[in-house]
Amino acid sequence: MKKIKDTIVGIKGIDYKLMDKTQIRLDSLTKPQGSLGRLEDLAKQIAGITSKESPVLKHKVIFTLAADHGVTEEGVSAYPKEVTAQMVYNFLSGGAGISILANHVGARVIVVDIGVAVDLQPEPRLLVKKINYGTKNMACGQAMTRDEAINSISSGIEIFEEEYGKGIDIAGTGEMGIGNTTAASAITAVFTKSAVEEVSGKGAGLDDKGLKNKIDVIKKSIAVNKPDPTDPIGVLSKVGGFEIGGLAGIMIAAAARKVPVVIDGFISGAAALVAYQIEPKVKEYMIAAHKSVESGHKVILDYIGLRPLLELDLRLGEGTGAALGIGLADAAIKILTQMATFKSAGVSERNK
Amino acid sequence: MKKIKDTIVGIKGIDYKLMDKTQIRLDSLTKPQGSLGRLEDLAKQIAGITSKESPVLKHKVIFTLAADHGVTEEGVSAYPKEVTAQMVYNFLSGGAGISILANHVGARVIVVDIGVAVDLQPEPRLLVKKINYGTKNMACGQAMTRDEAINSISSGIEIFEEEYGKGIDIAGTGEMGIGNTTAASAITAVFTKSAVEEVSGKGAGLDDKGLKNKIDVIKKSIAVNKPDPTDPIGVLSKVGGFEIGGLAGIMIAAAARKVPVVIDGFISGAAALVAYQIEPKVKEYMIAAHKSVESGHKVILDYIGLRPLLELDLRLGEGTGAALGIGLADAAIKILTQMATFKSAGVSERNK
Repeated sequence: MKKIKDTIVGIKGIDYKLMDKTQIRLDSLTKPQGSLGRLEDLAKQIAGITSKESPVLKHKVIFTLAADHGVTEEGVSAYPKEVTAQMVYNFLSGGAGISILANHVGARVIVVDIGVAVDLQPEPRLLVKKINYGTKNMACGQAMTRDEAINSISSGIEIFEEEYGKGIDIAGTGEMGIGNTTAASAITAVFTKSAVEEVSGKGAGLDDKGLKNKIDVIKKSIAVNKPDPTDPIGVLSKVGGFEIGGLAGIMIAAAARKVPVVIDGFISGAAALVAYQIEPKVKEYMIAAHKSVESGHKVILDYIGLRPLLELDLRLGEGTGAALGIGLADAAIKILTQMATFKSAGVSERNK
Repeated sequence: MKKIKDTIVGIKGIDYKLMDKTQIRLDSLTKPQGSLGRLEDLAKQIAGITSKESPVLKHKVIFTLAADHGVTEEGVSAYPKEVTAQMVYNFLSGGAGISILANHVGARVIVVDIGVAVDLQPEPRLLVKKINYGTKNMACGQAMTRDEAINSISSGIEIFEEEYGKGIDIAGTGEMGIGNTTAASAITAVFTKSAVEEVSGKGAGLDDKGLKNKIDVIKKSIAVNKPDPTDPIGVLSKVGGFEIGGLAGIMIAAAARKVPVVIDGFISGAAALVAYQIEPKVKEYMIAAHKSVESGHKVILDYIGLRPLLELDLRLGEGTGAALGIGLADAAIKILTQMATFKSAGVSERNK
């Protein structure tokens, strides 16, 4: 818990003064004021986060954390549990959705085993921070111990810190874990006090019957564990997942290091909820990449108060939406730092 | 008129069979079916347009057409008319919004003087296809002659064809013309039979009083010219602009060459309306990049039946939204052509 507390202490508010100054600079560029809309907001936010007048987004890093979920025993996913491990190999060999989209935006992907149910073949590019061999079935008791919940967040902080040494100008979050929309729905229902039905979707591809079962399992998990929304670590331990805790840690660490963190979809959103409940100041460091098809994601975004950049009906996870969000952030910073001003280009300003 | 007719004859329907085949291929990739949402739709559409199983988007070209509008005499813009020419120089020197965003997505920008009010300094990268020195004031009579309207569309076809020789895998549309939202609103009102108020916005930055005047001017222009919506060339000549005709020509030429064409914002949308009224088949070749803040743009998209990819509150024009749309198209094609399949990656398929 010490690592988490020490990191949180380091999170300051973002630089509003510099954001005002950045708006003045944006207004001096050869375009009608505000005409680049959310790209301008994004440039301003990133200036405020980094405290840099001209932020550089050279090192783009997406953290894709993989873990298994005991609750798959209840038949809550359309895919077999083995897929978590298989997809990790796919990430490493560069054939997954996130591999392609990260490459498209010039980001590197850090693949982490934070709790896959099997031991994976060692690989230099695979970071192993295994908390345990998957969570326990939360429909029958706690998904993990309180210590494991703390460790998963601390590990996220560690993962970020280790990579920070190599350079991170903007971070993205991603995950892989068969069964993890079930955990994300439970977390969302608890923190936002929403009906389980409202925050549960078909995940990777359940049918209507499967969704009904998933909802029942989530309700049972909440009834059995009685998570207390005022105790975020408790909620994570009771109905969470290792990758969710790890991502919450990454978000907290990013905020402490003044690094903008682009939140992917629903599971990353659940991690954002955990981080936000632990320390609300992290919100200002978050950029919501997109709105997922999973209904719970909108509930999360509204609860925290984040407006998604994209609505492309994505529901893959892995960090794919975050990658596209990072591409937009990159565009926004180029606008801020590379466009000509009215003065430099000799363009007349508006009529008075 | 012959060039336009000859080009239209070449427009075929897109390849639906290949689109079905492409969906099967997308479903074989290591992701839940449909989980990349609109990126998958985009990949399918581009396969259908190009008739290529594995389309390559190497040559990305944005056409930014500049022209002046006589209606600026009525005080319909927040910026002085000279800005059109000044911005052309800014495009050429690489300091404009479109310069930065086109570079961001790896597109080249073709800057065209299709009707700027002054003679611009010659420059190898400036294409001069001047129809006339700006349109006439449409509040007092036709904006251009019928011959000029035909010439502007034919010139658009020529511009595309000349560049096609150098390679175009995907095209984007953009424009610059002080006063051109006034023309775009008039065109939109006429074709979609909407109230002028509903399709008129503040353009580059009018205040409420300015917007009221603009609406009055548009109403007067329509009353004076009585454009007939069943005669698209007539509408263009009465209340259009040279860049709008030129962009309509580019869209028609792109469709004839089976090249996907990414439509930028409101003015490009008005050009899309003209092209669509001339030949509805062009619709299938169009990709709507974004939804502009200008209220008329949504009316256009709904009328043609295009769903925008992005909603980023943009209202700059120049092709800036099209550039971001081209970036997404690029991502979509990389997903289609570079992702591993369940089989190749040894990933288990979904439970039966």
